[in-house]
Amino acid sequence: MLHFESDYMETCHPLILKKLEEINFEKNVGYGCDGYCDRAIAKIKKACGRDDIKVQFLVGGTQTNSTVIRAVLRPAFGVISADTGHIAVHEAGAVEASGHKVLTIKGHNGKISGADVASYMENFKADSNWEHEVRPGMVYISHPTEYGTLYTNDELVDLYAVCRKYKLPLFVDGARLGYGLAAGEITLPFLTDHCDVFYIGGTKVGAMFGEAVVFTDERLAEDFFTIKKMSGGLLAKGWLLGVQFDVLFTDDNYLKISKNAIDTAMAIKKGLTEKGMTSYMDSPTNQQFFLVTNEEEKRISEFTGYGFMEKPDKDHSVIRFCTSWATRMEDVNELLSHF
Amino acid sequence: MLHFESDYMETCHPLILKKLEEINFEKNVGYGCDGYCDRAIAKIKKACGRDDIKVQFLVGGTQTNSTVIRAVLRPAFGVISADTGHIAVHEAGAVEASGHKVLTIKGHNGKISGADVASYMENFKADSNWEHEVRPGMVYISHPTEYGTLYTNDELVDLYAVCRKYKLPLFVDGARLGYGLAAGEITLPFLTDHCDVFYIGGTKVGAMFGEAVVFTDERLAEDFFTIKKMSGGLLAKGWLLGVQFDVLFTDDNYLKISKNAIDTAMAIKKGLTEKGMTSYMDSPTNQQFFLVTNEEEKRISEFTGYGFMEKPDKDHSVIRFCTSWATRMEDVNELLSHF
Amino acid sequence: MLHFESDYMETCHPLILKKLEEINFEKNVGYGCDGYCDRAIAKIKKACGRDDIKVQFLVGGTQTNSTVIRAVLRPAFGVISADTGHIAVHEAGAVEASGHKVLTIKGHNGKISGADVASYMENFKADSNWEHEVRPGMVYISHPTEYGTLYTNDELVDLYAVCRKYKLPLFVDGARLGYGLAAGEITLPFLTDHCDVFYIGGTKVGAMFGEAVVFTDERLAEDFFTIKKMSGGLLAKGWLLGVQFDVLFTDDNYLKISKNAIDTAMAIKKGLTEKGMTSYMDSPTNQQFFLVTNEEEKRISEFTGYGFMEKPDKDHSVIRFCTSWATRMEDVNELLSHF
Amino acid sequence: MLHFESDYMETCHPLILKKLEEINFEKNVGYGCDGYCDRAIAKIKKACGRDDIKVQFLVGGTQTNSTVIRAVLRPAFGVISADTGHIAVHEAGAVEASGHKVLTIKGHNGKISGADVASYMENFKADSNWEHEVRPGMVYISHPTEYGTLYTNDELVDLYAVCRKYKLPLFVDGARLGYGLAAGEITLPFLTDHCDVFYIGGTKVGAMFGEAVVFTDERLAEDFFTIKKMSGGLLAKGWLLGVQFDVLFTDDNYLKISKNAIDTAMAIKKGLTEKGMTSYMDSPTNQQFFLVTNEEEKRISEFTGYGFMEKPDKDHSVIRFCTSWATRMEDVNELLSHF
Repeated sequence: MLHFESDYMETCHPLILKKLEEINFEKNVGYGCDGYCDRAIAKIKKACGRDDIKVQFLVGGTQTNSTVIRAVLRPAFGVISADTGHIAVHEAGAVEASGHKVLTIKGHNGKISGADVASYMENFKADSNWEHEVRPGMVYISHPTEYGTLYTNDELVDLYAVCRKYKLPLFVDGARLGYGLAAGEITLPFLTDHCDVFYIGGTKVGAMFGEAVVFTDERLAEDFFTIKKMSGGLLAKGWLLGVQFDVLFTDDNYLKISKNAIDTAMAIKKGLTEKGMTSYMDSPTNQQFFLVTNEEEKRISEFTGYGFMEKPDKDHSVIRFCTSWATRMEDVNELLSHF
Repeated sequence: MLHFESDYMETCHPLILKKLEEINFEKNVGYGCDGYCDRAIAKIKKACGRDDIKVQFLVGGTQTNSTVIRAVLRPAFGVISADTGHIAVHEAGAVEASGHKVLTIKGHNGKISGADVASYMENFKADSNWEHEVRPGMVYISHPTEYGTLYTNDELVDLYAVCRKYKLPLFVDGARLGYGLAAGEITLPFLTDHCDVFYIGGTKVGAMFGEAVVFTDERLAEDFFTIKKMSGGLLAKGWLLGVQFDVLFTDDNYLKISKNAIDTAMAIKKGLTEKGMTSYMDSPTNQQFFLVTNEEEKRISEFTGYGFMEKPDKDHSVIRFCTSWATRMEDVNELLSHF
Repeated sequence: MLHFESDYMETCHPLILKKLEEINFEKNVGYGCDGYCDRAIAKIKKACGRDDIKVQFLVGGTQTNSTVIRAVLRPAFGVISADTGHIAVHEAGAVEASGHKVLTIKGHNGKISGADVASYMENFKADSNWEHEVRPGMVYISHPTEYGTLYTNDELVDLYAVCRKYKLPLFVDGARLGYGLAAGEITLPFLTDHCDVFYIGGTKVGAMFGEAVVFTDERLAEDFFTIKKMSGGLLAKGWLLGVQFDVLFTDDNYLKISKNAIDTAMAIKKGLTEKGMTSYMDSPTNQQFFLVTNEEEKRISEFTGYGFMEKPDKDHSVIRFCTSWATRMEDVNELLSHF
Repeated sequence: MLHFESDYMETCHPLILKKLEEINFEKNVGYGCDGYCDRAIAKIKKACGRDDIKVQFLVGGTQTNSTVIRAVLRPAFGVISADTGHIAVHEAGAVEASGHKVLTIKGHNGKISGADVASYMENFKADSNWEHEVRPGMVYISHPTEYGTLYTNDELVDLYAVCRKYKLPLFVDGARLGYGLAAGEITLPFLTDHCDVFYIGGTKVGAMFGEAVVFTDERLAEDFFTIKKMSGGLLAKGWLLGVQFDVLFTDDNYLKISKNAIDTAMAIKKGLTEKGMTSYMDSPTNQQFFLVTNEEEKRISEFTGYGFMEKPDKDHSVIRFCTSWATRMEDVNELLSHF
């Protein structure tokens, strides 16, 4: 059986386990006040090209999204998101559980544009009942998106300009950021300069777990440590996060290992397209989507795992093949051989 | 200047003020434990044709919606609503503030059908990621809807059957219930038998304020008194609510005074349509919607107040003329004379 | 049967009902945007001696407390209160329901001092685990307190100085403010200058319902209208609040009618003490507390209503006799005649 | 420098790292649906002596406490805890952030008794204002407590009987459960039979992270998976938790490694007491508390890390020496040599 279900099927990059073994009996203070966290933060700052940023570690993606959003928003404010955004669909209402509404905009292949946000804001301002409605208080995007697509530099510049015009902090969910950096135009320093807070995904990009939140506007980081504790996101053995990001941000590992996911995903995309499969979304990253009939899906399920996305009609499904830093090209070749 | 902005522009039915004057210095115990509340509840039970229901009073509509919803839903459950539902649009995120997501379905003239809910539930169950998504935990409709439309008996029977099939309590927002009863097919006993909880709107139908929540499934009323207190919805001088609903449910007043709103609204509908105005929605109740150009709107604003609904394009607006139990036909005639 | 259960047993001052009758069919816009609210606000500003304050109306006390507190506090911050504070005991967890902890300090006859708060803050700062604890974010007091006691000018000056030192907004619950103004040293202008937000209680002081929140630091009032809506505290027919406070703040009515409560309460205090009853708390306001044996309580319950406070031991209870703007001296005399 | 600050200073038991290395490139499905979790659950069930329990994994203690509590409580209900309980003091308001109040009872050396709870409930029921107060909805204890103390079998039997009488689910925080099992009377099967939900702490007892929640009343586990997701507590690579608890519950490892913490703690207790240090609490587990003067504390801080607990007066502090599964007796001896 092959496995292309998701990008978090293997434990972690071997260098991380190696390091953990080395320091296993070393005594560290808890909650991220250790030297590994300090070193990881220094390296992240360097990779982002900015020293005035604040970095905080959390354990997982949903936790990170809801904790950042509750830290940023005032009561009665909501967060603007594409209707396909992870926070809008697959987080079991974590944002609402913190008291805030997700305000959805129809996305374009998972993305929203500056024009979308401007239009939303102008409609809001033109509505004479606006004081009875949830106030838009920030904008959430994911990069790569849930459909594997990427923002270009120009798109991000444009979106961020609109956000600043309307005083909406821009938050970028980077659960798969490595794969975006490896496949797209936007670099880490460029991202740092064009949003207010983002996170560098570890769980899906080589770590066992862990996400590094980068506040480029440090006012948004106020009291974040305590808010993280309150949200159940403060890891007791914080050095585990420090060690992992320290390894990932040493020798450009984060980018290097991400590249494998892109190479294998592109092989799948090319291979399956050549074999006549219908691509559902032109994704440049590690998630590849195909439209299949029920019969095809049944056959495919016999030799490989894959992700289910949606059923556009009763006869078809959209399925996803997902690669990661750990995917082997030989498994890709075996996958292709079945078509 | 004429006033057709809303159905809550006058203070209250004169019989209510008269009664309040009579009892002004009478000493009553607080929080709804007085005799007026008891009498009002007995009359409401009679009007609903059921003795096994639980009645609780609150002060306003948004408060009632969010308090009922938080009382009914478990954590991680959401409430299904039409995308035009009041809770989805005009309550400033009150439901989300209590930790729950509003799950929207595209409405048809403000309504949702049994088929809509069944389809939502089947999609939910078919989604292999459902455990990562907000669980649908109840259904919210308004009757009349925000667009003045009404459910038929058959539609309600159908919707309630689907709700029961999927174990979703059905909650009916009756902020304007009197106008629905006066204009439509559904009667109070029929409604009582075809939903799990609803409220009888007072604020918009003759009272100064006040909504009477009827739990037809009494299990949903458990601890409701304390939840109401926690939600800031427990009125200290509870007899004010008792007195008002006592008056409204004496001599069939609630229905009788509602009829005036329908008569005056129909006169507006007929009159304006005959004069060539474009009706935007075929509403049988006290809210009448028209599509106007920007120039028309400007002219109208010079002689009457009205409600703004939306701008379908930059050259047009949808505006609303609203009547109430207190609207005088002479004001309607004056309104029509301007067209 | 006599009634001294609470100070909200009568409907309202007759001038209010008279005014409501006069304007019953007048058409007003909703949500507090009417002229009565404007006039009431202007009069309140004048009575407070300050033009730079923001005034907002709500319906009831618990609603006001929880709405103000959620508007002021950031996530993970709590509100400091006496352990006997209304928010700590009798609001069914309304503050917690908005996500915030009530941090209690042992009160002295219902009050807390500047020294208490300073001590709390110093302990907090000295605790090396403070980042894992709820951050104190504001201070709540009531004036009069739940035990009828009052702050002196000096006590308030001292407490407010400590609050400012530690950057803790000071919020004064004035559910019974009229009775405090009528009996004590603190005047409305003095209060305005020595806290950041307070409210002027209407429900217990002559109104049918209604509380006027005064933000002396207007930054705390940001978005308050929408937060009020979200919290279910925005009254549709807002002019009802405007009319009531307009009447109460005309011709010094608020203070004048409060005086009756003090006069009648002092008669009870003097009369019962002379007759050998044991006063439980030296209260200068409209709540008078007595320690009674179970036998005495039984006998008392046969001729009058009263409030139950607590049972200090199995043989005794603390009971409360409460007067109001509407209490008649003849009822007091009848009460005394029973002892 | 020695380190006795806490029991989570080392990474994890070597067998865990070894296992993780073995399976590093094995592909596992996410969210706890893997075979390791299944095996760990089977072993936990066996260790608990019951097959009808439900086991769910989370990442950390605060997260576990707040997620379990929000899953169990209805709106307007609170959780009873000792005033020294972790949820009452050191979780930054996580319980309140989920909308619930922590109702504190004065503890006895960190514990509360059946009599305490019964007294609380009788007072609550006797209070005629109970419907305006937070309803007690469950009881929280920790075993071992925050002061290292342990419940006896009899105490737990008694407390649980009271909880059942008042229909209060009993939740036992077992962040340090291993150390309680190794030092006290209560066994895992006994605990399983005398509470409704508890958790087996991993973070402080040999795991890198992870807590295993055991629902002995499976009705409390309803929807828990989704509530966990909503609360940010669902780990993507769930097998990491499965692997760890699989190792800990193989060959009685959990108990075996816990014993080291007790042995080393007893050596500290005996050693320091013999050297004249003042024990602050008679703790049979891995946390040992001493009362020291400011001068002593300063001196101690020069050769070892320790935990700060509280300052009973300005001249003294209570400090804590903490051992763990990984503490070496030679470090204890070095510690003792400094006194």
